[in-house]
Amino acid sequence: MDIKKFERRSFIKKVAVAGLASLTLPDLVLASMPEARQKRTILKSNAVVLFQGDSITDAKRTKSDLAANSAPGLGSGYAFLASANLMQSNPEKGLKIYNRGISGNKVYQLAERWENDTFAIQPDVLSILIGVNDFWHMMNGTYKGTLDTYRNDYKKLLTLTKERLPNVQLIIGEPFALNGTSVKPDWFPLFHDYRKAAREIADEFKATFIPYQQIFDKALELAPVSYWVPDGVHPSIAGAQLMANAVTQAFRK
Amino acid sequence: MDIKKFERRSFIKKVAVAGLASLTLPDLVLASMPEARQKRTILKSNAVVLFQGDSITDAKRTKSDLAANSAPGLGSGYAFLASANLMQSNPEKGLKIYNRGISGNKVYQLAERWENDTFAIQPDVLSILIGVNDFWHMMNGTYKGTLDTYRNDYKKLLTLTKERLPNVQLIIGEPFALNGTSVKPDWFPLFHDYRKAAREIADEFKATFIPYQQIFDKALELAPVSYWVPDGVHPSIAGAQLMANAVTQAFRK
Repeated sequence: MDIKKFERRSFIKKVAVAGLASLTLPDLVLASMPEARQKRTILKSNAVVLFQGDSITDAKRTKSDLAANSAPGLGSGYAFLASANLMQSNPEKGLKIYNRGISGNKVYQLAERWENDTFAIQPDVLSILIGVNDFWHMMNGTYKGTLDTYRNDYKKLLTLTKERLPNVQLIIGEPFALNGTSVKPDWFPLFHDYRKAAREIADEFKATFIPYQQIFDKALELAPVSYWVPDGVHPSIAGAQLMANAVTQAFRK
Repeated sequence: MDIKKFERRSFIKKVAVAGLASLTLPDLVLASMPEARQKRTILKSNAVVLFQGDSITDAKRTKSDLAANSAPGLGSGYAFLASANLMQSNPEKGLKIYNRGISGNKVYQLAERWENDTFAIQPDVLSILIGVNDFWHMMNGTYKGTLDTYRNDYKKLLTLTKERLPNVQLIIGEPFALNGTSVKPDWFPLFHDYRKAAREIADEFKATFIPYQQIFDKALELAPVSYWVPDGVHPSIAGAQLMANAVTQAFRK
């Protein structure tokens, strides 16, 4: 039995025994991310970890504070919460963690600043969450890019990344959108194709994939969208912690 | 066998079986806080949780942001990290969490602002960490208060608190100081008497006591002071997460 089947069966068994209501959220998260639970991401000594993405990663970080392991520089979102957890639980490793997410970014904008904001940092682990703006700005008419643009730009960026950083370990987050105040019904089903593209790209580039959409969909069984992701795009503190838990689950202990 | 003895025995057994180096930090934290592990603090539905204290609690929160569950208003220290954890793991409860720590505060300064900053918020759970400035500012000659002042001011504040909020559940943190860049050798052993006073007060007022000094002393087995509390007083991100883990352990699941 492969690990995915095992996870699924174990999840189903728990549901059968306990009823869904008594499942804890960590169970839900784990059940929805068997890939991450394989813990293929390794934190070696003095590892450099870099979080890249858009506003969800940015989370109002202080842009002038570029030092590793700086609270203002890490923002107040999932990147900070995951960093705190990783640093607390790996004290012997001397991790150096950076956040270079920038609000509003699409893939091509990551590419434009990749030299300074990624290659210069020489990450051992590179976590990327990008895509909701590639979709959103296309939908609101401020961006001409399509699903193909997203896919092609993303593959080009990762091909270059692997050339320049052959040993980098990639973590790719699934773009997500929930039925919050900024998300319109016409986002679906087209948005799901962006999710699917990110998953396929993660597979192609042997990245650990974090299925955020699935995680939030499951979290909705416990509290409404307004609790986790009020506008449907930007997580609350609770939502950010849920994401952070998923990221930290991706690392081998 | 009472719970403390059980915890201790279970800890010793783990050490014997695994050797100290392979103990995880959560084990260390749990082993050092049997009181908290009794989980006497209960989070009821719509509970209001308030973090009070000095700069360690403040953690550069945005003072103008007084709303519940606001990331800028919660700062970037243990109060924010504990809040994120509590909100993520209790989605059905609709918690409202506030931080009103203010940098530099001693007990009498909490008392001066208690009406607006505590009673007005009507907390169900009130977490207080105060004392290092009562000691530090006495040592550097900027404050005349003594150990007796600390003890008496603290008791007076809690007596009033219990009168005005008879059902409040108290969590009292142990003041801590490590051999960092701001802490001088002449702090000890006198500083230990402030720790002891806080513990005695916690017992007297039936508070859950969080033994931060013990927790950090144990953490030093895994990484140096510079990793956890660089100046000996203000925790790093890793140190703040360690404190947050201890706080969240105090709540009954």
